[in-house]
Amino acid sequence: MRELTVDLGDRSYPIYIGSGVLEDIAAYFDRHKLSKISPLLVVTDSSVAAHHLSPVMERLQRGGYPAVSYVVPAGEASKSLAQLEGIVTAALEAGLDRKSAIIALGGGVVGDLAGFAAASFMRGIRFVQIPTTILAHDSSVGGKVGVNHPMAKNIIGAFHQPELVLYDTSTLLTLPIREVRAGLSEMIKHGLIWDEAFVAWIDEHAGELLSLDEKALEYGLYEGCKVKAIVVSQDEHENGLRAILNLGHTLGHALEAVAGYGELLHGEAISIGMVGAAKLAEDFGYASHIYTETKRIFEKFGLPVTIPSQLNTDRIIDAMMHDKKFKEGAMVYIVPTAIGKVEIRKDVTVEQIRKIIAHLKEDI
Amino acid sequence: MRELTVDLGDRSYPIYIGSGVLEDIAAYFDRHKLSKISPLLVVTDSSVAAHHLSPVMERLQRGGYPAVSYVVPAGEASKSLAQLEGIVTAALEAGLDRKSAIIALGGGVVGDLAGFAAASFMRGIRFVQIPTTILAHDSSVGGKVGVNHPMAKNIIGAFHQPELVLYDTSTLLTLPIREVRAGLSEMIKHGLIWDEAFVAWIDEHAGELLSLDEKALEYGLYEGCKVKAIVVSQDEHENGLRAILNLGHTLGHALEAVAGYGELLHGEAISIGMVGAAKLAEDFGYASHIYTETKRIFEKFGLPVTIPSQLNTDRIIDAMMHDKKFKEGAMVYIVPTAIGKVEIRKDVTVEQIRKIIAHLKEDI
Ligand SMILES: NC(=O)c1ccc[n+]([C@@H]2O[C@H](COP(=O)([O-])OP(=O)(O)OC[C@H]3O[C@@H](n4cnc5c(N)ncnc54)[C@H](O)[C@@H]3O)[C@@H](O)[C@H]2O)c1
Ligand SMILES: NC(=O)c1ccc[n+]([C@@H]2O[C@H](COP(=O)([O-])OP(=O)(O)OC[C@H]3O[C@@H](n4cnc5c(N)ncnc54)[C@H](O)[C@@H]3O)[C@@H](O)[C@H]2O)c1
Ligand SMILES: [Zn+2]
Ligand SMILES: [Zn+2]
Repeated sequence: MRELTVDLGDRSYPIYIGSGVLEDIAAYFDRHKLSKISPLLVVTDSSVAAHHLSPVMERLQRGGYPAVSYVVPAGEASKSLAQLEGIVTAALEAGLDRKSAIIALGGGVVGDLAGFAAASFMRGIRFVQIPTTILAHDSSVGGKVGVNHPMAKNIIGAFHQPELVLYDTSTLLTLPIREVRAGLSEMIKHGLIWDEAFVAWIDEHAGELLSLDEKALEYGLYEGCKVKAIVVSQDEHENGLRAILNLGHTLGHALEAVAGYGELLHGEAISIGMVGAAKLAEDFGYASHIYTETKRIFEKFGLPVTIPSQLNTDRIIDAMMHDKKFKEGAMVYIVPTAIGKVEIRKDVTVEQIRKIIAHLKEDI
Repeated sequence: MRELTVDLGDRSYPIYIGSGVLEDIAAYFDRHKLSKISPLLVVTDSSVAAHHLSPVMERLQRGGYPAVSYVVPAGEASKSLAQLEGIVTAALEAGLDRKSAIIALGGGVVGDLAGFAAASFMRGIRFVQIPTTILAHDSSVGGKVGVNHPMAKNIIGAFHQPELVLYDTSTLLTLPIREVRAGLSEMIKHGLIWDEAFVAWIDEHAGELLSLDEKALEYGLYEGCKVKAIVVSQDEHENGLRAILNLGHTLGHALEAVAGYGELLHGEAISIGMVGAAKLAEDFGYASHIYTETKRIFEKFGLPVTIPSQLNTDRIIDAMMHDKKFKEGAMVYIVPTAIGKVEIRKDVTVEQIRKIIAHLKEDI
């Protein structure tokens, strides 16, 4: 088991990563002084519930925690104001009060949704993350929570830090392989923006990671969380540095939107986005091996590196224009300058983007 | 014109109170460096829009501010997640970005709703309050924003402080008299919890206040805001002292709910609630003139001081049980100990409440 602290002053919190940590959920809750009087609400989705809800509920109840559960349909569509209302209904019915906590058991969808419910129920109650996807190593660090609007992803939300994160690698064994790859895409991102050695380690351990080897996952998730935690600690409210976490995301988000949500997984879309950013690096005069290396690694993990040709270029560019990373009209773009290093550029033009998209469609 | 600072460290903000301050809205926005590039969204309701929207929009546009407006139906029902979604739609269509601001032009409903939209749009953008009701002198200080859930009022929300508050007493001239009385109820509350001299002043100036005399309003709103600001500064996130602002509210909220929202105005309901709290003070052995004085003042302002007999006592008590001011089963109640002084009691029993309700129904 590895422990990591996300350092945010009086909002600091620990992440416990390892196989079997959930068996001790009641002990962790004891240590973090969750209330045994005020009810807990465990929010999860239908797929996660099928595999992992009962043991969690049983252990909580055996440990003396009055816990109830609320299950949303699996999928991005649940990150909605309608589901937020559903969670609040469940919370009111269960009698949650200001000392209660909401527990997110699931991937990034459940984490973002339940986290926003915790941020806004009674203007904020305690919150615990139990990530069950690899991608959620990203979403469980940093405190960004929220829901989607029909016109824009993640546009309604808050910053709300959890009390603790319990990351049990054994829950990942039931994850569909496509979700595994997509989650590893964010892990690779954390290497690419910060730590060349971590990229090399990921590259070497691709087989173990893809086959969900516990030791490899524990280390990879730990290192991935650590990069995110360092960045977030230095810039909790996304005023500067934190932007580097968006490597591959401006294009990635646009691809997700244009493909229709759910067609391209987030991790797949940003895989293409990061390859695009690496191509852009070439355009800015950085070494061209950045592009070839980036592409090679994502391909090794079975992730997409080209834009499906049916996605209309103008619509992709349009979607990028609406991305909230545009400040007062200027385009902010994260560009790698080496493997393990990026810079924040504010001078990327639409023409450059158009060229990159054309390139990523041709697959050369 | 009077100026007051709500002192909250780096979230401090000024309230400008006076007749005609809105004529200088663009100058105030200049002073507070609102963006002239990123669009502003003015949120208001249908009744306020009829009287006050056009001049505000014109002055903003003349001052070089790219402003658009969004009008919700007047009434408490607009404090909903559905209207939140509507505001976000309008914000996206208008192209708001992270440097934009949302302007609440209206009473507490618009302030709470638009404030929550500002708190959660892109996880928080700037926010300006332009209160147009007397009651809003309360809601515009303290940063509590939020919407209702069908099962509970104000249960989904955030703390989000405005950049500035522009309180133009001339907008109050179009306010229906019932709303005037209801707003003055919160002003009296601010006297009752903090400042005997202010209660005496209100008592003496009842006529001027009810007839919307500008000088009287300016002073009364200033003093009312000041009391709230002092309390809030000492306890931004409602961990202790701030509870005193709930004088009359535990019972008041229950009465609003049981009467059916909209039947009893908030200010009317808490008028009854404060008279009830004063009666409870007698029960705890405090001087009985607290009760007679409290009742006399509210009656002088034409506010209700008895519970309509058709409101079922068990349902009122039930509604109080669901109030979020119950922490882990214990009942928190604000009780006056003199005119201008209250204490936070945690030992009020259901039996005592039942007795008070019976008393308030008999009107003796
Ligand atoms: N808050 C942040 O900082 C942040 C960062 C990155 C991504 N996100 C958000 O995270 C979301 C994507 O996260 P995700 O990829 O985890 O999506 P997800 O939560 O939808 O999980 C992916 C799928 O796997 C299923 N699943 C989850 N755990 C499982 C398990 N252990 N066994 C079997 N099936 C399982 C889910 O039911 C779902 O169908 C997006 O909404 C994205 O916006 C947020
Ligand atoms: N956030 C807080 O701290 C806080 C504190 C107290 C109350 N509140 C909330 O405030 C709300 C009540 O506020 P309110 O009494 O201002 O209600 P409101 O906003 O609904 O206004 C009352 C009525 O007066 C109309 N109106 C407003 N200004 C007008 C004007 N100048 N001329 C003509 N008509 C006008 C409105 O359209 C509405 O019909 C409640 O939802 C309550 O929960 C919040
Ligand atoms: Zn991502
Ligand atoms: Zn009130």
